[in-house]
Amino acid sequence: MSRYIREGDNPDLTEERRKASFDTEAMAELFWGARNLMRRREIANYVEQHREFDDPQPTAFMTREELIENATRKAVLTMEHAEKAIDITRDEESHYFNALTMGIDGNPFGLHLVMAIPTIMNNADEGQQDEWLPKALNREFIATYAQTEMGHGTNLKKLETTATYDPKTQEFILHSPTITSTKWWPGNLGKSSNYSVVMAQLYSQGKCYGAHPFFVQLRDLRTHKPLPGITVGDIGPKFGINTNDNGFLRFDQVRIPRRSMFMKHAKILPDGTYVPPSHSKLNYSAMVYVRAAVVSLMASHLLACSTIAVRYSCIRRQGEITPGTGEVKVLDYQTQQYRIFPQIARGVAFRLSGNYIIQLYRQTMTDIKNGDISAVPDLHAISCGLKAVTSYQGALGLEQCRMACGGHGYLQASGFPLQYTVAIGACTYEGENMVMLLQTARHLIKMAKAIRSGRPPKPNKVIDYLFKKGPTKCLIDQTYDPNYQSVLEAFEHLSRRVTLEVYDRLVQLQQQGRSYELAWNECAVDLCKATRAHVRTFLAKTFVEEVNKIADISLKSVFQDLLQLYLFYEVTECAAGLLEDGFMSGQQLTYAKKNVYDALAKIRPNAAAIVDSFDISDRELQSVLGRRDGNVYENLLKWAQMSPLNKHDVLPFHHKYLGKMMDEARQKSKL
Amino acid sequence: MSRYIREGDNPDLTEERRKASFDTEAMAELFWGARNLMRRREIANYVEQHREFDDPQPTAFMTREELIENATRKAVLTMEHAEKAIDITRDEESHYFNALTMGIDGNPFGLHLVMAIPTIMNNADEGQQDEWLPKALNREFIATYAQTEMGHGTNLKKLETTATYDPKTQEFILHSPTITSTKWWPGNLGKSSNYSVVMAQLYSQGKCYGAHPFFVQLRDLRTHKPLPGITVGDIGPKFGINTNDNGFLRFDQVRIPRRSMFMKHAKILPDGTYVPPSHSKLNYSAMVYVRAAVVSLMASHLLACSTIAVRYSCIRRQGEITPGTGEVKVLDYQTQQYRIFPQIARGVAFRLSGNYIIQLYRQTMTDIKNGDISAVPDLHAISCGLKAVTSYQGALGLEQCRMACGGHGYLQASGFPLQYTVAIGACTYEGENMVMLLQTARHLIKMAKAIRSGRPPKPNKVIDYLFKKGPTKCLIDQTYDPNYQSVLEAFEHLSRRVTLEVYDRLVQLQQQGRSYELAWNECAVDLCKATRAHVRTFLAKTFVEEVNKIADISLKSVFQDLLQLYLFYEVTECAAGLLEDGFMSGQQLTYAKKNVYDALAKIRPNAAAIVDSFDISDRELQSVLGRRDGNVYENLLKWAQMSPLNKHDVLPFHHKYLGKMMDEARQKSKL
Repeated sequence: MSRYIREGDNPDLTEERRKASFDTEAMAELFWGARNLMRRREIANYVEQHREFDDPQPTAFMTREELIENATRKAVLTMEHAEKAIDITRDEESHYFNALTMGIDGNPFGLHLVMAIPTIMNNADEGQQDEWLPKALNREFIATYAQTEMGHGTNLKKLETTATYDPKTQEFILHSPTITSTKWWPGNLGKSSNYSVVMAQLYSQGKCYGAHPFFVQLRDLRTHKPLPGITVGDIGPKFGINTNDNGFLRFDQVRIPRRSMFMKHAKILPDGTYVPPSHSKLNYSAMVYVRAAVVSLMASHLLACSTIAVRYSCIRRQGEITPGTGEVKVLDYQTQQYRIFPQIARGVAFRLSGNYIIQLYRQTMTDIKNGDISAVPDLHAISCGLKAVTSYQGALGLEQCRMACGGHGYLQASGFPLQYTVAIGACTYEGENMVMLLQTARHLIKMAKAIRSGRPPKPNKVIDYLFKKGPTKCLIDQTYDPNYQSVLEAFEHLSRRVTLEVYDRLVQLQQQGRSYELAWNECAVDLCKATRAHVRTFLAKTFVEEVNKIADISLKSVFQDLLQLYLFYEVTECAAGLLEDGFMSGQQLTYAKKNVYDALAKIRPNAAAIVDSFDISDRELQSVLGRRDGNVYENLLKWAQMSPLNKHDVLPFHHKYLGKMMDEARQKSKL
Repeated sequence: MSRYIREGDNPDLTEERRKASFDTEAMAELFWGARNLMRRREIANYVEQHREFDDPQPTAFMTREELIENATRKAVLTMEHAEKAIDITRDEESHYFNALTMGIDGNPFGLHLVMAIPTIMNNADEGQQDEWLPKALNREFIATYAQTEMGHGTNLKKLETTATYDPKTQEFILHSPTITSTKWWPGNLGKSSNYSVVMAQLYSQGKCYGAHPFFVQLRDLRTHKPLPGITVGDIGPKFGINTNDNGFLRFDQVRIPRRSMFMKHAKILPDGTYVPPSHSKLNYSAMVYVRAAVVSLMASHLLACSTIAVRYSCIRRQGEITPGTGEVKVLDYQTQQYRIFPQIARGVAFRLSGNYIIQLYRQTMTDIKNGDISAVPDLHAISCGLKAVTSYQGALGLEQCRMACGGHGYLQASGFPLQYTVAIGACTYEGENMVMLLQTARHLIKMAKAIRSGRPPKPNKVIDYLFKKGPTKCLIDQTYDPNYQSVLEAFEHLSRRVTLEVYDRLVQLQQQGRSYELAWNECAVDLCKATRAHVRTFLAKTFVEEVNKIADISLKSVFQDLLQLYLFYEVTECAAGLLEDGFMSGQQLTYAKKNVYDALAKIRPNAAAIVDSFDISDRELQSVLGRRDGNVYENLLKWAQMSPLNKHDVLPFHHKYLGKMMDEARQKSKL
């Protein structure tokens, strides 16, 4: 008996929960791990018992100022409660606690924790750390990280903000020489932060030494007003993530002490002499981590939205499939299953690969400390590609879930608009997706060169398959294949083929006289395709491997249904690539499609229990359509009745415009 | 010299405008028609001279109440000015005038004009018309159309609101017996309208006669308060279209006079006798019209968003393609062109098909009056499919344009968020897209049956090709083919094949014992594919035909580039379908891709001038990124500085939360 069944629930949903072929709680344990699941329940309980974490009204009803006030209140509260509620050394616990208390839409000192403190730890010298770090950890100030400018994002060389050293006063002069040099986008910069890491071009003794980080006070500690010479504010409303006060920042000849420059690596001596870092160091680790984290983030969005869509589709009835037998649950429609279930499968695939890539990240960090940097390029490459592919597929998937809920999905009450606008941000933040796809492609092209020159690199799991010879013909439907070896080989084949083809074309274009860069640009769309094929292979292999590890047969069988759907859905998605060189036959594609439809039918009776086992609470979902109890319609009406426009029976301006128009018309017609 | 070039413009954009191979103004004339273009200019001028049409601040800064007040103010103003500004008998003029004055986000009496007045004209008998129509036209009241309920949308049979006739008082009793019977979604119902057409199940003498329309007063004419027994309000914030007060409505035993029932067709006599309509009449015309209009609407969205993306991509510089030559315009990247230019091509394709389908609609209405209803099924079918395909492709395309603008596209200042949230609404309103695709498929299956039985229907342009035999092998790249006959034949082949295949499978499943309905559901995903293939064929053929009509060679050449991109892009989109039966070869697909990339390169130098020729004004675009003058960055900063959060240097609640937290931390560290 599912713990999700309670008295007073919508009977259609209860019926679905009873149908499950597996134990929901056992599935939840498998999904989260037993210890994490227990802790999730305890943390959720803690939050439920502290009503001060509740929103005073649904956030969809709030103005942006109210949103930020509410988020600020809850962020401070979250910090105060953290030590009591969770083991703060465990990321899983703080992520979950934050998700419950602050939701998905950002908070006013996220950047302080994620960017500013790590920068101090990695770039401040000992004296600076002694001064700044305790204060930062105690939250005596709130800092952010200001790199991106209006005119340039990640390209450090092209940043325009200057920090010019003046040896007379031993100060730097920070300046924003152009409009485009305005810092633009840094999270929490607009209103919350009073300090910031600022990336600026370092000038000393008439020479530019490139972009360096500085630690700069922006606002008065007492009044919180911007300091002289500093213009700072919020960049205005966005598609989503509006609780974050992403900001702009301009300097008008602002003087800061010499020791404001982060001096662990490079230095400026009092006389203005530049001391370069002892070894030039590529520090991609924070970026790699964030990109890897996007994969898990997208998993969360997909699992949340598919939970909403499945539950609503169990209580929404529409049309008769067999005349005279009454309206069916819309989840019975194949088209509805085809919209929603692949999103569940992708959500699970992303979750598994997200876990894997974070482990790989941690392993690689350990390796680096031990002097082994060999895995860095592969990790960097796959994390870029995964970020791009999962953020786009994820966002598209959310919209499928939303549209599967028809008109009601368009209501803010559904929870979908917030999910989508937050999730789609990941397509452009932390490395715009096309740039990311091409980053991965650079690595793939290196591998292609190694293949063509017969010099494979040190073996490793992510990229090895490129150097192998697979079957020359697709074996889908030809062999008994419980582990989907034939499907994985098909993905490998496609990835290998498109990578080598685009490599050969690059070489050919150069032989025809193009520069490498122009040739690259002419092949860019196909290079992106190579990355997508590589990422597909990675996601699919990880999914297969993880399912193989499951011991419990009833749970494994459910995962196998999702895996079947995932793999054959992906086959249909990349079918043109598999068909075009004759690797796969039309008959095999028909077989793949049949497998998709079969999987949909197998998943159908378990769908409600599957999404239950993701253990996403109503507090997280923030969705009237996705409520655990399935009592959608009455709560939709209640929700609407609470909304701001309904505070007045008659809008205050009615008589000024429409009322007046109608009155005058009636007067006129009486004449 | 382009009329879009002015002094003070961003020189990067001017340079692009100078590069055009054609005359922008001649293109604009071709695009809109000479007379319409002239009138557009005059109307735009009229609006510019009446500053009262200006928004007091960007709408992105407004609360929903402010949005609706502003929209109401402008809607009343638009009505007052209409006769002076435009020829109100010409739809093109009123559409354009409304677009300039009210924008894309709806208005408080749109439904009065589009739904309520036509219902009175089509469904009220003479006496009722005499009473209601003059008042409606004079705007003595504002009415809407309330059909959709919380639990059911377009399925009239399942509506739950009841209208029970009481012969004693000669009244109907309107009642909402369940939560799900609550009227939910009707536009302008929440706050603006004081009357509504209400669809309700008619009961008389103990018998239900099905859903009928009633004309019901909802609010007091003087106070605008809801009348006794009526609960009415706004359904709350939505993903978009928030200037529209979509509403809910419940009746608690509300009595209305017998003559409130629309009596042109069916009647209730004073004693309660039901008089059925003389002939049961399917009145799809309004729905067909709205669905056809969606095609043009999506064209407008795509052309607006591609205008923004192209202009911004001309002034945004990022990265060097050739080292040492400086940063390039991002429009020079193939990946950027691949994102944006197909949206231009689709926008143009939708515009051409949108025009065509509206003409077909008008022709069909004339035919119906003359007793010829033969074209109705084809028109109905293609309009459903077109609505579904163009609304989804359109919305996806807008997101591509947005993401092509990187982080800045995510700002409300870009204009994209409003465009997307409004446009994507079309996927679920006026017939949810899956339902629409399956409607068209029903018609296709009828055609397939006719093919298999060798009985073709009366010839007509939309569906004829299904009955023809095309080539058995794809002829792309095999023949000289200036009119793309081989591509059109490929689309026809695919549409024919998938339609017949799914028909045969339906028959087979029934032979295996499935009911028709269950077989239909098992084939539903493939049925949707058949519709998409049919719609693709229609869009492509219309595009080819329209381009062939262009006389001017320099303009035609530009259209041909867009057509080349459109057709071969579509070939790559449906490549799996063309490859799987061996119709197209891998080599031909390579040829198609090459044609896509060639078309991108040909369009590149004309891109800025092409979007100029769509003649979309800054007032319509509402986009800082898409400004005609290209002066993006300084205006982005100004825009942000005007935004509500920046009214305060320090947010009013700062000291209550963050300030307090930091103060306390500093106190503590001093101890």
